Amino acid sequence: MPSIDFNSDMGESFGVYQMGADLDVLRHVTSANIACGFHAGDPRTISRTVDVALKAGVAIGAHPGFNDLLGFGRRAMHLDADEIYDITVYQIGAVKAFAEARGGRLAHVKAHGALYNMAARNRDMAAALCAAVRDVDRSLIFYGLSGSQLVEAAREADLRCAEEVFADRTYQDDGSLTPRGHPQAMITDVAIAVEQVMSMVERRQVKSVNGGWIDVAPDTLCIHGDQPGAAQFAAQISAALRDGGVTIRAPQQSI
Amino acid sequence: MPSIDFNSDMGESFGVYQMGADLDVLRHVTSANIACGFHAGDPRTISRTVDVALKAGVAIGAHPGFNDLLGFGRRAMHLDADEIYDITVYQIGAVKAFAEARGGRLAHVKAHGALYNMAARNRDMAAALCAAVRDVDRSLIFYGLSGSQLVEAAREADLRCAEEVFADRTYQDDGSLTPRGHPQAMITDVAIAVEQVMSMVERRQVKSVNGGWIDVAPDTLCIHGDQPGAAQFAAQISAALRDGGVTIRAPQQSI
Amino acid sequence: MPSIDFNSDMGESFGVYQMGADLDVLRHVTSANIACGFHAGDPRTISRTVDVALKAGVAIGAHPGFNDLLGFGRRAMHLDADEIYDITVYQIGAVKAFAEARGGRLAHVKAHGALYNMAARNRDMAAALCAAVRDVDRSLIFYGLSGSQLVEAAREADLRCAEEVFADRTYQDDGSLTPRGHPQAMITDVAIAVEQVMSMVERRQVKSVNGGWIDVAPDTLCIHGDQPGAAQFAAQISAALRDGGVTIRAPQQSI
Amino acid sequence: MPSIDFNSDMGESFGVYQMGADLDVLRHVTSANIACGFHAGDPRTISRTVDVALKAGVAIGAHPGFNDLLGFGRRAMHLDADEIYDITVYQIGAVKAFAEARGGRLAHVKAHGALYNMAARNRDMAAALCAAVRDVDRSLIFYGLSGSQLVEAAREADLRCAEEVFADRTYQDDGSLTPRGHPQAMITDVAIAVEQVMSMVERRQVKSVNGGWIDVAPDTLCIHGDQPGAAQFAAQISAALRDGGVTIRAPQQSI
Repeated sequence: MPSIDFNSDMGESFGVYQMGADLDVLRHVTSANIACGFHAGDPRTISRTVDVALKAGVAIGAHPGFNDLLGFGRRAMHLDADEIYDITVYQIGAVKAFAEARGGRLAHVKAHGALYNMAARNRDMAAALCAAVRDVDRSLIFYGLSGSQLVEAAREADLRCAEEVFADRTYQDDGSLTPRGHPQAMITDVAIAVEQVMSMVERRQVKSVNGGWIDVAPDTLCIHGDQPGAAQFAAQISAALRDGGVTIRAPQQSI
Repeated sequence: MPSIDFNSDMGESFGVYQMGADLDVLRHVTSANIACGFHAGDPRTISRTVDVALKAGVAIGAHPGFNDLLGFGRRAMHLDADEIYDITVYQIGAVKAFAEARGGRLAHVKAHGALYNMAARNRDMAAALCAAVRDVDRSLIFYGLSGSQLVEAAREADLRCAEEVFADRTYQDDGSLTPRGHPQAMITDVAIAVEQVMSMVERRQVKSVNGGWIDVAPDTLCIHGDQPGAAQFAAQISAALRDGGVTIRAPQQSI
Repeated sequence: MPSIDFNSDMGESFGVYQMGADLDVLRHVTSANIACGFHAGDPRTISRTVDVALKAGVAIGAHPGFNDLLGFGRRAMHLDADEIYDITVYQIGAVKAFAEARGGRLAHVKAHGALYNMAARNRDMAAALCAAVRDVDRSLIFYGLSGSQLVEAAREADLRCAEEVFADRTYQDDGSLTPRGHPQAMITDVAIAVEQVMSMVERRQVKSVNGGWIDVAPDTLCIHGDQPGAAQFAAQISAALRDGGVTIRAPQQSI
Repeated sequence: MPSIDFNSDMGESFGVYQMGADLDVLRHVTSANIACGFHAGDPRTISRTVDVALKAGVAIGAHPGFNDLLGFGRRAMHLDADEIYDITVYQIGAVKAFAEARGGRLAHVKAHGALYNMAARNRDMAAALCAAVRDVDRSLIFYGLSGSQLVEAAREADLRCAEEVFADRTYQDDGSLTPRGHPQAMITDVAIAVEQVMSMVERRQVKSVNGGWIDVAPDTLCIHGDQPGAAQFAAQISAALRDGGVTIRAPQQSI
């Protein structure tokens, strides 16, 4: 029986500043990507988020990003491969310690924002990310944009990889996501999002903004928790998938 | 045969800013306390410091502090016990990941600066530190000021504890260190420092600035690497101890 | 005719993180204390907040705090007087530049959170704050807790001072605010808040939590914008004051 | 009589971390570009640097950079023009307040590192910098790479501009500096540096690494203070220029 993981970024609050509706979203996902204190999150927030994720029984992942709280990790920064390796080891280690201190374990790593998007196109950056993941714990699953350099680098590093697809973002002809800011970047109509997901799961293809078909391997679906209506959005996609006979579960057993 | 550990704070550079003479000091110590990126250090610096410490064969420790780079972690900050727990788990996790990524292991934890000094007098803070260490890895050895709340809290948490003594700092009657800034705080004369260390090792007592005797249990001796002549200072104390039949080694086998 | 200023902290968002309802609150106040990027705020946020404050015709002030975004400037930190002077000059300068770049002018300075509360009791800290304000621009009005060291230090520095009173906070017998966290710290019942304000304006006294009377000189009233219902709270106090014949206006002409 | 300004970056220490030999370099320059706390510097350091610069009688400038202490402002970051404007107003304001608090005045602005280099090629960035300078104080002199977009943007903004040339950096055919990291980027031989400067002053041309001639307008010469031997380097170039009849002075009267 086919299965897919639902992952969501979490723990992106900082001090008194609240972000997202983690408790709501947790009821709809099977993997939590926990911000590590660089683009968002702080030790207190990580601690609380690991607690609630463990209670919810979802897979715990580290969600490393650029050290740019002001830009929420969405501004491109130019780091060399060694720096990318080091910031990734650091951030994984921090979240891993909380998971283990609570009797849980870290299951996966997914990069955030500009780090994710840049590495999806840049093999050296992707390889640095994968080397960091592998060196910390080679049993970790690496989440990366389906078909991108992230996936290729994970294969080369001999890491298990969950290829990621998006329900609420459009694709360009080369398989990359349409950048935020473009008018067509986001899919806000749930019906269209459901259609896109069902196409990805059943045909293993997604239609680009220009009408071309792109191959995808949907191991995990990204659910954005920082938008209003996110939980309901997730619920509807989930219902459609279950109706179509697709199990929603973390990728630990599947890949 | 009696033994003592020599520990030194390391990896306290930040970006282009250099601090300390780690490579020199490494030749004289058996434990390296590596700054974790809060009061000093950054991912690149941690990575390099773990590398050189492993090559030198010294025990690797995490050196967590307050998140105050500008004050180098020396300014008192008021955090509640939960916050102390969380910043400690976070920082230990980060350094532990580098140690393990390089095929080594984390052996100990020693708090830095104001965090160390405040917790030495405050049992709640000390207990929060110890809970963090224990929850991350109960085999870690906790380094704390001999006779202080740090030692008491470690005992209560069932952690192995290396009681720490100082060669280049004077003691007050209550066993605390004379605060930096006081004219008598530092011992700069190597002969007096050697005398203080030999008294601590042989009599298990140290004379306070007021002439009283304080009991100490010298498991580990702090060597300050950020001062000029630090390496030579360490070498002379080391020679005196060896002459006195004292082995210098990490506390892993001793306590 | 008696008058009083309504002041509120503003511009306390940071990057993607939103805080407060500045546009709502601006309709009810006559002075805006704009966070300077240390405890909250960032250049973009300062820029926008200065713009909306100028459009609203309210007096623009700098709201300097400790450099502790994670603790929102509410955690006590121990800085020496020189450091307090320097962080205050820095933060005033930053906001002053935006005010002047927009054709406006900086009118006042009010310290934030732990910096305000510590300096209210500590004359050296208060004097350092006042020296910074005076050295940047001696025409600036300094806002400080009525009757506290902030007011005394301002007088000594020959600065104009607007003594500040609170509608939604209770007072202790020594005239200090009951610390946040205490069960009685906040006044959430608008009727009681209005009663407290009217007592301060008409009797120039406020009743402490223990029933004693404390003298106050209510030049400016703090309106907390970061709480739900803040705008309505302000509106009701404002209505009661106007009914009592009190004009609400910035202190520029009054003191 | 021809004249040229010698400018140097200063105040780039941070907390306990020391950078540069400001007191030495101050004896050889006529303009100090003071780091503003983003890529380097902190309020205490700015305060001290303004003090020593005023005592030395050199022109005081703000030296704004990206908010990237870890990368010392040398890593490319992608900010939109509004963000560049805002970080520039903020940083200028902070240093201006110290200059005025000490009875001095801010005379110029020079961008740092990646901000300088990116804006030298990108007109939108250069225009954002110039708008910020002009809006804070239109009498400020803007220092920018001779012949670059920085100079063009300053002209368009109706700002006085000091065109900057380099003694210890090589030029590419398009007039840009050879990036740091390239083997030929730095000129370490003082004789060659002197020759380059004399060519720039006398011929108003400099030879590129490929042997072509580039027109330059040498209003101000950059002296790098963070390198060993910087003061001596400056002294030798200075002597050669004076021998050639060139006065060394800040550009206030010259442009």
